[in-house]
Amino acid sequence: MTDKVLDDISHRRYNPLNGSWLLVSPHRTKRPWQGQQEAPALNKLPEYDPQCYLCPGNKRAQGDSNPHYKNTFAFVNDYSAVKEEQQEYHPQKDAPGDGDDDIASLLLQAQPATGRCYVLTFSAKHDTTLADMSASEIVPVIETWTRIYASHLSPSHPLQAAAARALSEIPPNPDGEVEPAKKQQLRYMQIFENKGAAMGCSNPHPHCQIWTTSTLPEEPGKELAQMTKYHREHKGRHLLEDYVKVEMQKAERVVWQNDAFLVVCPWWAVWPFEVLVIAKRHVRALVELTGEERLQFAEAVQEVTRRYDNLFETNFPYSSGIHQAPLGCTEEEAEMSWFHMHFYPPLLRSATVRKFLVGYELMAEPQRDITPEQATARLRDCGGELYRKLLQ
Amino acid sequence: MTDKVLDDISHRRYNPLNGSWLLVSPHRTKRPWQGQQEAPALNKLPEYDPQCYLCPGNKRAQGDSNPHYKNTFAFVNDYSAVKEEQQEYHPQKDAPGDGDDDIASLLLQAQPATGRCYVLTFSAKHDTTLADMSASEIVPVIETWTRIYASHLSPSHPLQAAAARALSEIPPNPDGEVEPAKKQQLRYMQIFENKGAAMGCSNPHPHCQIWTTSTLPEEPGKELAQMTKYHREHKGRHLLEDYVKVEMQKAERVVWQNDAFLVVCPWWAVWPFEVLVIAKRHVRALVELTGEERLQFAEAVQEVTRRYDNLFETNFPYSSGIHQAPLGCTEEEAEMSWFHMHFYPPLLRSATVRKFLVGYELMAEPQRDITPEQATARLRDCGGELYRKLLQ
Ligand SMILES: O=P(O)(O)O[C@H]1O[C@H](CO)[C@@H](O)[C@H](O)[C@H]1O
Ligand SMILES: O=P(O)(O)O[C@H]1O[C@H](CO)[C@@H](O)[C@H](O)[C@H]1O
Repeated sequence: MTDKVLDDISHRRYNPLNGSWLLVSPHRTKRPWQGQQEAPALNKLPEYDPQCYLCPGNKRAQGDSNPHYKNTFAFVNDYSAVKEEQQEYHPQKDAPGDGDDDIASLLLQAQPATGRCYVLTFSAKHDTTLADMSASEIVPVIETWTRIYASHLSPSHPLQAAAARALSEIPPNPDGEVEPAKKQQLRYMQIFENKGAAMGCSNPHPHCQIWTTSTLPEEPGKELAQMTKYHREHKGRHLLEDYVKVEMQKAERVVWQNDAFLVVCPWWAVWPFEVLVIAKRHVRALVELTGEERLQFAEAVQEVTRRYDNLFETNFPYSSGIHQAPLGCTEEEAEMSWFHMHFYPPLLRSATVRKFLVGYELMAEPQRDITPEQATARLRDCGGELYRKLLQ
Repeated sequence: MTDKVLDDISHRRYNPLNGSWLLVSPHRTKRPWQGQQEAPALNKLPEYDPQCYLCPGNKRAQGDSNPHYKNTFAFVNDYSAVKEEQQEYHPQKDAPGDGDDDIASLLLQAQPATGRCYVLTFSAKHDTTLADMSASEIVPVIETWTRIYASHLSPSHPLQAAAARALSEIPPNPDGEVEPAKKQQLRYMQIFENKGAAMGCSNPHPHCQIWTTSTLPEEPGKELAQMTKYHREHKGRHLLEDYVKVEMQKAERVVWQNDAFLVVCPWWAVWPFEVLVIAKRHVRALVELTGEERLQFAEAVQEVTRRYDNLFETNFPYSSGIHQAPLGCTEEEAEMSWFHMHFYPPLLRSATVRKFLVGYELMAEPQRDITPEQATARLRDCGGELYRKLLQ
């Protein structure tokens, strides 16, 4: 049980995973809302849309055609944020002897970033979402993530043996696979989904993106540092190992669980119905999941997305992302990694009223209006069949 | 001059003010946009709206009535995120001797937060914005900010003498003033504006918010730590002092300036047209501005907001906020503070197409599509009369 008093008072909570605080103001949802309303999600999409650049057989922006794929299909993003090849960059030096030169190189720091970005569809059907798919239909998505992760690992990666095992277990996608560029030195792979117009998604065809980069991005970098510090300071225990233990014992933030995964609204949730899916045992990356665990992970993803849709009986928007061991990493970094997936959904009060993380949140610190315990209670209550199926 | 090559390649830039990196992908705006469009700002608002809870003479949510104020009017937010009085909070301890207790208190950390939140109107006119107001009409806003900041400083604050001078120079607001609660120990005052529905603003009447808290929020806390570190490592020079020097010398990110303030698209901008207004001399907080500098600050705010509106000929949304010395602080913290104001506007391509900071940005790190140098060039080109005035 939490201290009950936290339901009624303003307080800050600490996020040990990224090392920052947020403000919780449980009484604040009482205020009336006269601001922006989200457009309700479109009622009925076709199963196949001839205009969609992700549907099987269609032409894409730069002229390539998609195969008539069955489940998933991955391709290099036609508008990648990073590319494999680009001009080299060597920071320009001003005239030698110029004293201000030092200040400029201190304050105007840049570094080149290369890599490759992929788009991955979850299904051939234009009108489906993870919430509509069964766990066994989600398994091919997880298998594709696993094969892509495995094939992008650095040659000397500590998880190469696990990767080889995963690649031998999971048959290649008959509709084609992406292969990493030969010369690339990749450091990290960020798998993420933007779902819904409210989260900047420009195509409802179910898909995620996979950005691989030569650099370690900020967020996984901060988490790795925090997890490493915790491990050193607490007798070799893992932060998320201990966190799973505490949440299972307290039970009040647990939304759902199976043998392999725990689904919680974390103590430090920023987004109103933020959810964290955590591996119960020490899984460092996708390639370490067994076949049975991939199915259990699919179940967890299915439970989260279906509950989200049921909550406000809408096509619930969110951004989600997987954090795991970097693609290029030391033995210690792999060891400190703990597989988990974040879901950040913006809706707060209804299908059309979202939480804005704006002025105070951007300038000072994140602020939330309901407690994670209240969010958990709501999400626990909306399991069961997907609301859309009951309406049919 | 920047290295020209950065206009064409993906790279990361470092933000020394908050200590984090972001990804810049200059070629990415070429992709077509089929996602969410913002509703264009309402065409014509009345000068007085009987339904508005901020207009002079009107009733507010909890029954209070606004005075018939002339310029600005401040009151305690009817739905404050923090309050002065609340139940005390002492973290609950589990049964003694329970080994898991330690883990829980490590991983489920909370601290109480008290304080007071104000709403401050910028004008009696419902249909105006800072962009419509002249610099001399903005001066009363800055004077009110200054008086509120001064009256909330801790009794032993290193800037008390400056506060006393400012309070004696600026006449009290004839329409009433807010007084801090007597017993409060306040640590920080965050002044911020959310403008436009896209930034979560629920009332177009021009106003900002002022949240005072018993704790130092994350962002100003990070900046203070970074500025202090820089000062120690670089022979007692200030980070923003050096930054002003570099930007004035390089000139390519300077949008506008006067004697007292520099307006730049910072090297490390995350939002497409993000702007930073920096005091050129070492001003620690509002109370240190002279009367002439308050006018010059008003000019800078006017220039930024007018250029924003001119850029896409729209009522440009943004969140803005002031960072300055904490309300309760040590001599060193006051000394390390350097007065500045951030503007974070979401629009990217047009009046209706914004940048979404979503999946990759939330899970990995911020990513921007145009360079700050390109943004600067655009903002430099749209000075002159406010577009709306030319249409009349
Ligand atoms: O206080 P307001 O204007 O009602 O609310 C707005 O600003 C707050 C502070 O940035 C945010 O927490 C809210 O989500 C936003 O809608
Ligand atoms: O790549 P997309 O889906 O076109 O773009 C979306 O996701 C990206 C990665 O989070 C963001 O940078 C864009 O702002 C957003 O619109």
